[in-house]
Amino acid sequence: MLATDLKTHLTTTRDAVDRALDEFLPKQKTPPVTIHKAMRYSLFAGGKRLRPILCLAACEAICGNDKPAMPLACAVELIHTYSLVHDDLPCMDDDDLRRGRPTCHMVFGEGIAVLTGDALLTQAFEVAAQTKPSKTFTSAEMLLELARASGSLWLIAGQVMDVEAEGKPINAEQLRAIHERKTAALLGVSVRLGAMAGGATKEQMTAMAKFGYCIGLAFQIIDDILDVTATEEQMGKSVRADAEHDKATYPKILGLEKSRAEAKRLTDEALAALKIFDKKANRLREIASCMLARTN
Amino acid sequence: MLATDLKTHLTTTRDAVDRALDEFLPKQKTPPVTIHKAMRYSLFAGGKRLRPILCLAACEAICGNDKPAMPLACAVELIHTYSLVHDDLPCMDDDDLRRGRPTCHMVFGEGIAVLTGDALLTQAFEVAAQTKPSKTFTSAEMLLELARASGSLWLIAGQVMDVEAEGKPINAEQLRAIHERKTAALLGVSVRLGAMAGGATKEQMTAMAKFGYCIGLAFQIIDDILDVTATEEQMGKSVRADAEHDKATYPKILGLEKSRAEAKRLTDEALAALKIFDKKANRLREIASCMLARTN
Repeated sequence: MLATDLKTHLTTTRDAVDRALDEFLPKQKTPPVTIHKAMRYSLFAGGKRLRPILCLAACEAICGNDKPAMPLACAVELIHTYSLVHDDLPCMDDDDLRRGRPTCHMVFGEGIAVLTGDALLTQAFEVAAQTKPSKTFTSAEMLLELARASGSLWLIAGQVMDVEAEGKPINAEQLRAIHERKTAALLGVSVRLGAMAGGATKEQMTAMAKFGYCIGLAFQIIDDILDVTATEEQMGKSVRADAEHDKATYPKILGLEKSRAEAKRLTDEALAALKIFDKKANRLREIASCMLARTN
Repeated sequence: MLATDLKTHLTTTRDAVDRALDEFLPKQKTPPVTIHKAMRYSLFAGGKRLRPILCLAACEAICGNDKPAMPLACAVELIHTYSLVHDDLPCMDDDDLRRGRPTCHMVFGEGIAVLTGDALLTQAFEVAAQTKPSKTFTSAEMLLELARASGSLWLIAGQVMDVEAEGKPINAEQLRAIHERKTAALLGVSVRLGAMAGGATKEQMTAMAKFGYCIGLAFQIIDDILDVTATEEQMGKSVRADAEHDKATYPKILGLEKSRAEAKRLTDEALAALKIFDKKANRLREIASCMLARTN
């Protein structure tokens, strides 16, 4: 019963996010057509919209309504998409496929793919700037939080460390540092931004930050595990890609068993952080549990 | 006398902008070191800081003080620098030299150059988000203005149209559309943001928008002219690059004489737009005249 209800919620929310993104973005026919076609090609590629869903659920947990967080929810998805477009480039991970389709540069060429990533990143801030201030935060404070998490100390730092670590032996601590930046930073800020838009107090922000950090790290560990255990069909992208790029992963360093235990421990810690919230946070609790159990 | 005074002002302001940028940016030794080294390599490359100087002078024209505009002045320079780093990439203009030094990707490799551009762009919004609201505009409104001018309808549109026009015959109208986006958009928004930070009224914003548009377009026409007439030593970069890339330019389409006349006409129009302002706008007037007379 709960599972069906959650499934419906995820589908409904994904569709609402897609509609909002469609509204925020220039139409496909807006000149110059190439860039708007490429932006939409990469953005509407069947993503699960996990970051927006977390952002909206965090907002609902605070104020019982997810509407105020919609621009920020769209902004984090735009940033996620830009980072994938640039990450797939020949001079980076050199991936031909993404979610079962040719990557942006395969379709539009490298130059346009660079510009498409730039445009999606810029669009993220244009959309985020349209967030209304909440009871406890100004719009500029929310933008600052988003920019910091996406910048050279977090999201981009993770990409750099990932590139630099390829083929080198690293330990569990170093791997955690990469994962914290490459994945957990954006998932964590999605949660924090939702809470800010909902008007969270200081105490609530601390709890949400803890939740976001744990769930973000757990997500990447599970991603590492699925890259080893899932099929290409389940994932909609090339699997065993980590091994192919000689990338360090949790299963490689800790083994599958211990990696699964670590993901479980982090999810429990995330759920414990939500104890101070009432039933308005139930959606967020369900999503966290569902993320641990995911198979794609 | 005036010339000496202006020269001093330009040097002093450039140094103040450099100090502010140095403060805003993570230190060179901050991990991951590579990205912060690359960001600083590209940012501190001896640029004239024209966009920040215009932004600060516009703020002074409104409120008699340029301090409120400093974060925005730094933000437009960060955006200008990111666009150069990406524009120089092998998959774009493929330039080896910029301001007499090897370009970012020549020193740090293509992957890091892509990430460096991304980091500078993100940093721009992080810095801009630290602008205080003025009497007439919220910080979020200023950020929105910056994001729009830098996005797929303006700055990035210009890059796309530039790439797509290479080697094709275009007319004067199409060329103007490219220049409006590729160069005038960012110069124009520099002026508008300075005015917004200074607390400009609606009427003052209209005048500043007109000034910024005209001066921005004049700047690019002069750039086209200098690419034909100046020496590499004067410019600190490869000249005749436009002809080499078979790019359409004003001299190519209108001839040198008519191009010079058009730059003069636009500068006069820009100065006329400043008529509603008192002597606090004198610096802005001087800068506009100086831009028309520049030889590098």
